[in-house]
Amino acid sequence: MRAAIFNGPRDIVVGERPDPVIDAPTDAIVRVTLACVCGSDLWYYRGLSPHDLGAIGHEFMGVVEEVGGDVRQLRTGDLVVTPFTYSDGTCVLCQAGWTSNCLHGGGYGNHGMDGGQGEAVRVPYADATLVKVPGSGHSDEVLRSVLALSDVACTGHHAAVSGGVGPGMTVAVVGDGAVGLSAVLAANRLGAARIIALSRNPDRQAVARAFGATDIVAERGDEAIEAVREMTDGLGVEAALECVGTRESMATAFAIARSGSIVSAVGAPHDVVVPIETVIFRNVGLRGGVAPARTYIPELLADVLAGRINPGRVFDFETDLDHIVDGYDAMDERRAIKSLVRVAG
Amino acid sequence: MRAAIFNGPRDIVVGERPDPVIDAPTDAIVRVTLACVCGSDLWYYRGLSPHDLGAIGHEFMGVVEEVGGDVRQLRTGDLVVTPFTYSDGTCVLCQAGWTSNCLHGGGYGNHGMDGGQGEAVRVPYADATLVKVPGSGHSDEVLRSVLALSDVACTGHHAAVSGGVGPGMTVAVVGDGAVGLSAVLAANRLGAARIIALSRNPDRQAVARAFGATDIVAERGDEAIEAVREMTDGLGVEAALECVGTRESMATAFAIARSGSIVSAVGAPHDVVVPIETVIFRNVGLRGGVAPARTYIPELLADVLAGRINPGRVFDFETDLDHIVDGYDAMDERRAIKSLVRVAG
Repeated sequence: MRAAIFNGPRDIVVGERPDPVIDAPTDAIVRVTLACVCGSDLWYYRGLSPHDLGAIGHEFMGVVEEVGGDVRQLRTGDLVVTPFTYSDGTCVLCQAGWTSNCLHGGGYGNHGMDGGQGEAVRVPYADATLVKVPGSGHSDEVLRSVLALSDVACTGHHAAVSGGVGPGMTVAVVGDGAVGLSAVLAANRLGAARIIALSRNPDRQAVARAFGATDIVAERGDEAIEAVREMTDGLGVEAALECVGTRESMATAFAIARSGSIVSAVGAPHDVVVPIETVIFRNVGLRGGVAPARTYIPELLADVLAGRINPGRVFDFETDLDHIVDGYDAMDERRAIKSLVRVAG
Repeated sequence: MRAAIFNGPRDIVVGERPDPVIDAPTDAIVRVTLACVCGSDLWYYRGLSPHDLGAIGHEFMGVVEEVGGDVRQLRTGDLVVTPFTYSDGTCVLCQAGWTSNCLHGGGYGNHGMDGGQGEAVRVPYADATLVKVPGSGHSDEVLRSVLALSDVACTGHHAAVSGGVGPGMTVAVVGDGAVGLSAVLAANRLGAARIIALSRNPDRQAVARAFGATDIVAERGDEAIEAVREMTDGLGVEAALECVGTRESMATAFAIARSGSIVSAVGAPHDVVVPIETVIFRNVGLRGGVAPARTYIPELLADVLAGRINPGRVFDFETDLDHIVDGYDAMDERRAIKSLVRVAG
């Protein structure tokens, strides 16, 4: 099969990889229809994070091509979406909802696992991992939103859930990447009354507005902090969703968080320092992490299929597998929020 | 009046201070009966934290001596306990329960405020700050437990509440000081099924057992981490209550926290580093802070008066105001868990 292959920083090619085969009776092989590029893919693309050479990509949807003998919930031909981590569904952490921390789980597109940016993927614990997409004849818009559930929409949702976002709350989202925008959508879906999006990019501001942002703060750093404080009577917000993962974004989130509130962080951390004095003396908590997407997909999928949310709107660049590097470059150069990759029709 | 006066590290004397007077109509003057020494007092006593010269002490109970013209809920002669911070009860943060972050609040025994380690204290926002102790003729044991509500019992309770402790949970408490022991009591009160206390001091282990600890881990550092993991099938605990505030204690707490759980921290932080990778990749949250004692006192006081809890058991050294330095020294030298100071009969 053909797949994107990481040969080193700024060196991704599309070449041949072995066709995946059923290895354990709980496996399934999924023929990928749609995949995408994650903001976290850029870290190794840019040479800033380590990554195995070989298969890449952890967000995809597709059609079940083959199932192992112990797979009960899925059959050939099923349309499925995967969370970006696989999980057994039975361990104590899965049972507690923390599927992304499954004791026997892992990720795609690294450490010898097939990547989602390819024609097919072996999926472990298929019954527990994959979510079947009911119905047929879905519009392309719906399918793009289903694809978004593989990671970015669930990660934004995790930011909102971890921040304790609920009806009537005043929330800020730090970061206008695809995750930050998805966090805006999630906060709106959970009933936040006021959603302040920190963004200075007009295109992203427009998506933020479409997703439910009520206010835009275009300033950065200390000026952004000052602006959010002024908008909140000096109190700060009731939840600060940190969707970047840098030292500055974390500092901003803690500075604009109201005493007693929560900073939720979902970005892969790079050089982050947690201001412990703010945690202790202002009772600002820190939650978040790698989203348990498998736990969230069913409820979000229902909303996507009912047309209540359209998280796929974060995809503003589109390419095919052969030209996937264009999708990386568009995001790397911030020409695109998020790149969709059409793998099969 | 006579009061303890901080003249610099290891230099506390008992001398004369001006009698407090009503300054605002919402003030009350409280004649102190019982006070105590806080673990946090040791930081400036040892010269490790800054502190104004002058009045000290922030935990006390006593009898209302005089009230300002706007005080409605209290009258002369009322027996009262104070949270260690005063608060107006009306600001948005107080209304949300975060009385220790009151927009107009503050602490005792620093920055020009009377200290609790003296014969009398001017208490701002007396109606909102002070909690009346109903009944009369309370035993000394009950009064000691009421005194504990001023800080240490509420701080331990905040650790348990912030960690999300609930019925049936497996919890660890890092730190066997008075706060850690109070956290054991709080976790037990909230229904934890298993409470692992990290302590290598036999006297403190005994109090931990009396407060509800089911397991004792006497090891420290990596060995303690290994021991707790072994006791929990390699998973770690469902809540790790960090009651010290040092780099090592925080590292231990995060290492023994189960994925998806919360580390709650209530110790004043010194040189603490939050392991952000654990937060993100294992979904371990960080909550806690300066306890909103005023919010917690009513429910804990009811339990004290009903004899259901006896948080005053942390007091294992007793002195009077003239000899308060003995109480500091006993704690400084770890001869005492916590020192009670009898100020008036």
